[in-house]
Amino acid sequence: MKTLTKEIWMDIPQRRAIVSIHNEVERLVDKSGVQDGLVLINAMHITASVFINDNESGLHHDYELWLEKLAPEKPHSQYQHNGYEDNADAHLKRQIMGREVVVAITEGKLHLGPWEHIFYFEFDGKRKKRLLVKIFGE
Amino acid sequence: MKTLTKEIWMDIPQRRAIVSIHNEVERLVDKSGVQDGLVLINAMHITASVFINDNESGLHHDYELWLEKLAPEKPHSQYQHNGYEDNADAHLKRQIMGREVVVAITEGKLHLGPWEHIFYFEFDGKRKKRLLVKIFGE
Amino acid sequence: MKTLTKEIWMDIPQRRAIVSIHNEVERLVDKSGVQDGLVLINAMHITASVFINDNESGLHHDYELWLEKLAPEKPHSQYQHNGYEDNADAHLKRQIMGREVVVAITEGKLHLGPWEHIFYFEFDGKRKKRLLVKIFGE
Repeated sequence: MKTLTKEIWMDIPQRRAIVSIHNEVERLVDKSGVQDGLVLINAMHITASVFINDNESGLHHDYELWLEKLAPEKPHSQYQHNGYEDNADAHLKRQIMGREVVVAITEGKLHLGPWEHIFYFEFDGKRKKRLLVKIFGE
Repeated sequence: MKTLTKEIWMDIPQRRAIVSIHNEVERLVDKSGVQDGLVLINAMHITASVFINDNESGLHHDYELWLEKLAPEKPHSQYQHNGYEDNADAHLKRQIMGREVVVAITEGKLHLGPWEHIFYFEFDGKRKKRLLVKIFGE
Repeated sequence: MKTLTKEIWMDIPQRRAIVSIHNEVERLVDKSGVQDGLVLINAMHITASVFINDNESGLHHDYELWLEKLAPEKPHSQYQHNGYEDNADAHLKRQIMGREVVVAITEGKLHLGPWEHIFYFEFDGKRKKRLLVKIFGE
């Protein structure tokens, strides 16, 4: 069994942003030497997501507006969590977009459909945060 | 280690529909010979979901109305993605229902609760699309 | 390859509640002897979730109000599923919070970020239900 474990640090200057991590995950799968297996990619912070969707800036703008409608940031006073912090909305948004993805590895490559692209979604940035890539297979 | 990798083609005549893939996944687990392991089942397109819930047509109708309320298809002009396409809502709906499920295999069978049933949810059909089954274990 | 399979029974006296299962999962990872691998934790019922987020009661209150806004329980008559049952809202809420989490195991421990905490979210309690922990690795 071969495994590879890698923490990736992010430092997003905005509160919210979508960042491609696709090429970095591809590179790690290549480095692992795994031909047949699985890769788990997850945010290590609870106000961020890893998700797979389209690499298209119009859609990314749509996600921002849509999530802000379903789980608005303001007023901060609408959330009990914000008695301590101002990021309750980030904890909600991340549940819609998800914590993690699990992707198959076949013949040494990410086994993805034609438009699947792996992203990190930051909902409470302006500080250093991590995500995890765990590769497991033969 | 035993693995099985299988792409399944779908061609749904409607824009949106829920289709059972449960028996096909069961058949593939059986064929793999894996007694103890994991199976990943994921949509390979970014306007579809794989999810586990009830095999009950009333609930499937409720999902359709509920998702249309949370992420309405029309007017198409409300989404920037629709400058190029008309399926932005499908990209949003799929985030709520999820890209993938991971299910345990124990004693050669899908290890599921009494009402868990595996479905494919098409949000932008009328064309050929794929999903992936990846089985991994001993 | 080492594996550990464990069903955990829950019996929540309220209709809805968030319950920590973090220490129990930690204990099972320890017991499995797996140093490097994955653990899948999933609800076995389709009206409950397993999710990872903050261990903070204000936020848990926010989740309750937010989910009730996105997928209200009442009136029961708004859902076709409730021709047979009264828990359609529970099937919807569980899709937002998710069925399962997959967590890496590294050096014999859950490989989690500083605030990641594993919870069970019951949306239709007052009866015995199960969740599954499946550990897989070396």
